[in-house]
Amino acid sequence: MWERSLVLSAPGKVILHGEHAVVHGKVALAVALNLRTFLRLRPCAEGKVCVRLPGVGVVRSWDTSSLQALRTSIADFDESKSPSVEQLHTLKEFAGIAAGASAPESLATLAFLYMCLAISAKYGWTEEELTLINSWAFQGERVIHGNPSGVDNAVGTWGGALRYQSGKITPLKRVPMLRILLTNTKVPRSTKVLVAGVKEKILKFPAIMNPVLDSIDAISQECQSVLEAMPANPSPEYYPVLEELFDINQHHLNVIGVGHPSLDRLCRVTASHGLHSKLTGAGGGGCGITLLRPDTSPLAMEAAKRDLCACGFECWETNIGAPGVTLHSSSSLNAEVLHALSES
Amino acid sequence: MWERSLVLSAPGKVILHGEHAVVHGKVALAVALNLRTFLRLRPCAEGKVCVRLPGVGVVRSWDTSSLQALRTSIADFDESKSPSVEQLHTLKEFAGIAAGASAPESLATLAFLYMCLAISAKYGWTEEELTLINSWAFQGERVIHGNPSGVDNAVGTWGGALRYQSGKITPLKRVPMLRILLTNTKVPRSTKVLVAGVKEKILKFPAIMNPVLDSIDAISQECQSVLEAMPANPSPEYYPVLEELFDINQHHLNVIGVGHPSLDRLCRVTASHGLHSKLTGAGGGGCGITLLRPDTSPLAMEAAKRDLCACGFECWETNIGAPGVTLHSSSSLNAEVLHALSES
Repeated sequence: MWERSLVLSAPGKVILHGEHAVVHGKVALAVALNLRTFLRLRPCAEGKVCVRLPGVGVVRSWDTSSLQALRTSIADFDESKSPSVEQLHTLKEFAGIAAGASAPESLATLAFLYMCLAISAKYGWTEEELTLINSWAFQGERVIHGNPSGVDNAVGTWGGALRYQSGKITPLKRVPMLRILLTNTKVPRSTKVLVAGVKEKILKFPAIMNPVLDSIDAISQECQSVLEAMPANPSPEYYPVLEELFDINQHHLNVIGVGHPSLDRLCRVTASHGLHSKLTGAGGGGCGITLLRPDTSPLAMEAAKRDLCACGFECWETNIGAPGVTLHSSSSLNAEVLHALSES
Repeated sequence: MWERSLVLSAPGKVILHGEHAVVHGKVALAVALNLRTFLRLRPCAEGKVCVRLPGVGVVRSWDTSSLQALRTSIADFDESKSPSVEQLHTLKEFAGIAAGASAPESLATLAFLYMCLAISAKYGWTEEELTLINSWAFQGERVIHGNPSGVDNAVGTWGGALRYQSGKITPLKRVPMLRILLTNTKVPRSTKVLVAGVKEKILKFPAIMNPVLDSIDAISQECQSVLEAMPANPSPEYYPVLEELFDINQHHLNVIGVGHPSLDRLCRVTASHGLHSKLTGAGGGGCGITLLRPDTSPLAMEAAKRDLCACGFECWETNIGAPGVTLHSSSSLNAEVLHALSES
């Protein structure tokens, strides 16, 4: 049994520019958000491993003895290789998860089990250890997504902002603290279907679509240059270019067929408050991001949030360029986080 | 004095694809509309030339003797050369038009005077004569616009649909009769300012904007292929591609900065009736075109028109690919045209 409890967190992330184009070899920029997922590790009943993932409604527990037996039956955990079909099959049988299950709670349980069995407890991280964390987080992604890009686990591990192109991930030299509004349209979508739709459009109209991907690539690169040139607390004059890039990319994403009326509405509502938005990620619904300027008044912000909520959307005000995976001392956590942790 | 009256007409035109991109060497497609401008030539008072241009509110008359004197004072009318600064200065003085006047009535009077002095009366046209008409129409454009592309006079002379790139005008092999709705948002704009804004954006973000121009170029070329492959009375299955090209180009035009909230509204209103629209021409307000399918019901059409009129817009239902400049016999003219001619 552990002597004390540990609180860890990792940031959420958004794609700033380059979603979809990245699948076709173009540059994408991913940034960490200060909307964090917290994890508390603490002793529980003797001989038990309990997991509670309130975000996806998972509450499960297993005997440590059965987990040990399971671990023995699964050979060769290796953070540099994809989880094998056989390993995942064994874990699914153990956890009572159907073969084709794709519900978040099933996939989250599966990823937890895989990593719980494979990882030894460790805290306090050197660069080497962060690389190990990132590799294991990537394994979790592989369990859940099948063929992840690796950018989500990387930005969750290192935080800040990352450039991603054709499998190569590079951290940005500097990342200013930019305020954004993250809005969930709550329109469900399938990333797989959207990615396939983009591919189909490119095959149908290559001469029309390939230049659009080139333009998105140039947007990601221009955005990277602007971000790297900005001071940590940028003055308002840096913002018009970032806003223009948001607008242009949003049009491009509509062109490649991943827009949605709910996202058009999000853009229109924020535009009526002088704010610039784009979809982030797969599109076809899902989330949008809105750039907030240092001189955006709290009143204007609240009005925009109110109008977005009136559309049935959910909003969070946050920063991009947040720190990566972090070990917290309980005394440094704010009341809201402590409260949420004590409830779960 | 002339023995009889002549009625002539020339078609209006819209740019189908390629506006703005054409300024940067890309392909544009211009198509003739069956919304026609009619001209009636008939005898008037002895020793007088009278001109009535009801569309721009011009009613002027001059003594033929003074026009002859004016003609003698202006040497070297030539349809292959731009009207000279001296020629235009002399005409402005004669007609009492201020040096910097840019009102449509002043420019129309100036163009009329220039061409009236330069052209001998002729009717019934060989290809050679059409070329001459086109050259003189281009001179009129030069009087009015300064630096016209030549595509407006060409489509007015030959009708149908024209491809235009870097000064080279080529008629399309075939043009199906496509129904469109032409909508005037009535938002005034300056073509010069819009063209300059596009140039500025290209200079500011060359790597982002040049691919967008390439994509517009490919849209014009794809549209040309589709139009040339379509039978004269195309069945509905040809339309989805044309609609998709409208949608993509409209996004591109927003990207290069020539959109306008009134045009967004036009697109949204027609989309709510299942119809696809784009701006045509300079943008920033002005006109939009909406593609009508053979299976668009008259009821849906009327509903769309009603909603557009409720926005304060004005609509005309028309066809593209209309005939060029035409000499009419009075018996072949419909009642509406005869009535309009008798009123002016």
